[in-house]
Amino acid sequence: MDKHSWHLLEEYMLTCLSDSAHDMQHVYRVLNNAIEIAKGEEHINMDVLMTAALLHDVGRADEMTDPTADHAVTGGERAYKVLTETPELACDPAFAEHVRQCIRTHRFRRNDPPASIEAKILFDADKLDVCGAIGVARTLMYSGAHDRPIYTTFPDGAIRDGKGDTEDSFFKEYRFKLEGMYDRFLTRRGAELARERQKAAADFYQALLKEVRTGEGRAAFESLLTE
Amino acid sequence: MDKHSWHLLEEYMLTCLSDSAHDMQHVYRVLNNAIEIAKGEEHINMDVLMTAALLHDVGRADEMTDPTADHAVTGGERAYKVLTETPELACDPAFAEHVRQCIRTHRFRRNDPPASIEAKILFDADKLDVCGAIGVARTLMYSGAHDRPIYTTFPDGAIRDGKGDTEDSFFKEYRFKLEGMYDRFLTRRGAELARERQKAAADFYQALLKEVRTGEGRAAFESLLTE
Repeated sequence: MDKHSWHLLEEYMLTCLSDSAHDMQHVYRVLNNAIEIAKGEEHINMDVLMTAALLHDVGRADEMTDPTADHAVTGGERAYKVLTETPELACDPAFAEHVRQCIRTHRFRRNDPPASIEAKILFDADKLDVCGAIGVARTLMYSGAHDRPIYTTFPDGAIRDGKGDTEDSFFKEYRFKLEGMYDRFLTRRGAELARERQKAAADFYQALLKEVRTGEGRAAFESLLTE
Repeated sequence: MDKHSWHLLEEYMLTCLSDSAHDMQHVYRVLNNAIEIAKGEEHINMDVLMTAALLHDVGRADEMTDPTADHAVTGGERAYKVLTETPELACDPAFAEHVRQCIRTHRFRRNDPPASIEAKILFDADKLDVCGAIGVARTLMYSGAHDRPIYTTFPDGAIRDGKGDTEDSFFKEYRFKLEGMYDRFLTRRGAELARERQKAAADFYQALLKEVRTGEGRAAFESLLTE
């Protein structure tokens, strides 16, 4: 991939950004993760991988306007279209199709797993950004942007830890999604990088839970009141 | 304070909530912190302390509508008004004035420090919620709600660590505000609780910085491009 084509695609990517959990820095981190994971694999088409990483979230805004849209599917379509219909890129349709497949399968779904090694690397590179401290930070930012609480409470005011929760909160997201991410990696280096980050996320969750449970919750001051 | 009065004030507090970093759970945590800190002090007027803790952020929404407003000042006024003008509360004006003073000085300002022991405890109880993992979590949620990034970058794409930053980000907020909170406590037990939380916040910041600096930033893939 030459610099001019790359900058055209980068400019396009920058017009497709949505929220601060999926900002351009997320895209650059996924790109860096992909390059790092690729070092542990052989016969990688780096142009396909880098193009797919750069464009992997261009469908995000579609989910904002249409909640039934899947950004992996619409992002794949958008990428294919920009690659094949931009005269300056002069892109081979097989290349564009490979990029589309990578983007379409970067989101976890049981019935459409990543097939090519480039698709597997993109999948892991994106998942890595949900692991460790960065996964915690992005999830908290997303919670704040969507006005969700850190945790919810039982009727007596005691603080729930997220397990089995039905109402949205950071603790629920941690227990339902973040905590189990580490076993889902598809490449050796991806799994290794994820494991290196696991302790930072687990330590943070445990520290936060301990802190917010200082005292006995709302019940503590109820007991100080007179009838 | 009797239960009926308390529930009236609690209902009022619930009508004054603003963002998810200052939600009702923040209020209950500050209350719990205040009760915990009070155990280390003597001759505390617990009714004043609990009322001030319950109502300490009722001025938050004023800052949303008027950016020049100070929620500590307007919150103190609101608390005084509701305490003295609600017939069912039959509140002594001296009590209401003491609560107003506590709320007015709960925000850090050099020229108007907390005077009474109850005001000092409220100050520490509120600051404690900016320390440790809960301080990090709330700051990240606030960043997300205000569309601020986790970090900003140098012109070459390298990631800034927050020190000396001018653009808003979580890293800037951590280095400018959160990191230095631990030396500002006014009570013995408050300072002790803060120090117990310090490592969780520092560990998280360091882990996050290390993770996001995986690879060499945007420069890494620039070098992979051909002219």
